[in-house]
Amino acid sequence: MKLHGYFRSSASYRVRIALNLKGLSVEQLPHHLRKGEQRAPAFLAINPQGLVPALEDDQGAVLTQSLAIIEWLDETHPEPPLLPKDPLRRAKVRAFAQAIACDTHPVQNLKVLLRLRELGLAEEQVIAWAGWANREGLSACEKLIANEPGPFCFGERPLLADLCLVPQLANARRFGVEVNAFPRLLEAEAAAKATRTFADAAPDRQPDAE
Amino acid sequence: MKLHGYFRSSASYRVRIALNLKGLSVEQLPHHLRKGEQRAPAFLAINPQGLVPALEDDQGAVLTQSLAIIEWLDETHPEPPLLPKDPLRRAKVRAFAQAIACDTHPVQNLKVLLRLRELGLAEEQVIAWAGWANREGLSACEKLIANEPGPFCFGERPLLADLCLVPQLANARRFGVEVNAFPRLLEAEAAAKATRTFADAAPDRQPDAE
Repeated sequence: MKLHGYFRSSASYRVRIALNLKGLSVEQLPHHLRKGEQRAPAFLAINPQGLVPALEDDQGAVLTQSLAIIEWLDETHPEPPLLPKDPLRRAKVRAFAQAIACDTHPVQNLKVLLRLRELGLAEEQVIAWAGWANREGLSACEKLIANEPGPFCFGERPLLADLCLVPQLANARRFGVEVNAFPRLLEAEAAAKATRTFADAAPDRQPDAE
Repeated sequence: MKLHGYFRSSASYRVRIALNLKGLSVEQLPHHLRKGEQRAPAFLAINPQGLVPALEDDQGAVLTQSLAIIEWLDETHPEPPLLPKDPLRRAKVRAFAQAIACDTHPVQNLKVLLRLRELGLAEEQVIAWAGWANREGLSACEKLIANEPGPFCFGERPLLADLCLVPQLANARRFGVEVNAFPRLLEAEAAAKATRTFADAAPDRQPDAE
């Protein structure tokens, strides 16, 4: 399989963790987002949306959208599972993941920040915007797992929620968010980062890291 | 079951369609988003995130995030299915849904538009922002199903993709987007709107419609 990604893309980071947890090795094909390489014709022929991550399976089929890719990996490589078996528990884990992937990350991604700059906002306003989006989202996440057992987001094993949390906390720090306000999230992050699978997926371990 | 929603919330609209497709009737509990009712203490006790939709099941468990709610409905009430059986096809349908629920809707929702106004943008700039987010997202969606059989997004029956598309097109029109640029999406929308299940879920048919 081939993973089209970017070392700092938090959606690519989620998929890298999932691949590591499943014990799958892939060829990494980096596209430098800040240089606009995701809009090169050769990549648009693979993913017309011009977004990373995109995963090419061994038959050449292209999968897009990080959560859809991760659910596909979980359905085709069930061990270890990335979602609980009970439907209500699955819904809780998915809701946490979506609080990040729908409510938080898209509001602070590169495209949105570029647009804010185009509208004439000062750089400090743009960074404040990204900080606001991260604080709002992570505050919600902290509440969503306040009563869940640790050390991971939903118990003793990393699940889809943890795959989304760790990359988002990295973004939050880049935008200067005071993450100590989220002790339960930091507990889950520490448990995850202590594992080889999460550590090896970190941005600074990727071939295109700067 | 009880559905906490708002007639114009496109995420609530998605869940209303899913409930209708599954033949489930729920008690609707409206929260007026423009008046900030989603931040009332009584609702925050149910969903600390202060977002609609939230679904209370018959045992009082609370589910949040529209896509997580819909996948739960599909797992607990399998007929008619909202996702194909084949993993790769499931991933395609989910990716389309996420192109709307992650990449499009959150960038143009009420909270983001309010924030833009607070930053001093003129009303026409705010509406242009919402139009941009919808155009970018729907352009991607048009490409994602360009080679899929109709009349629905992915063939002869409405699936998760259609549940996300119809509410987003309603948003796009409210923001003045020229939707005729998306003929394949309009074909799917027309097929959906011809059904009773979609028609009954429309904003103007809800008890809190203005």
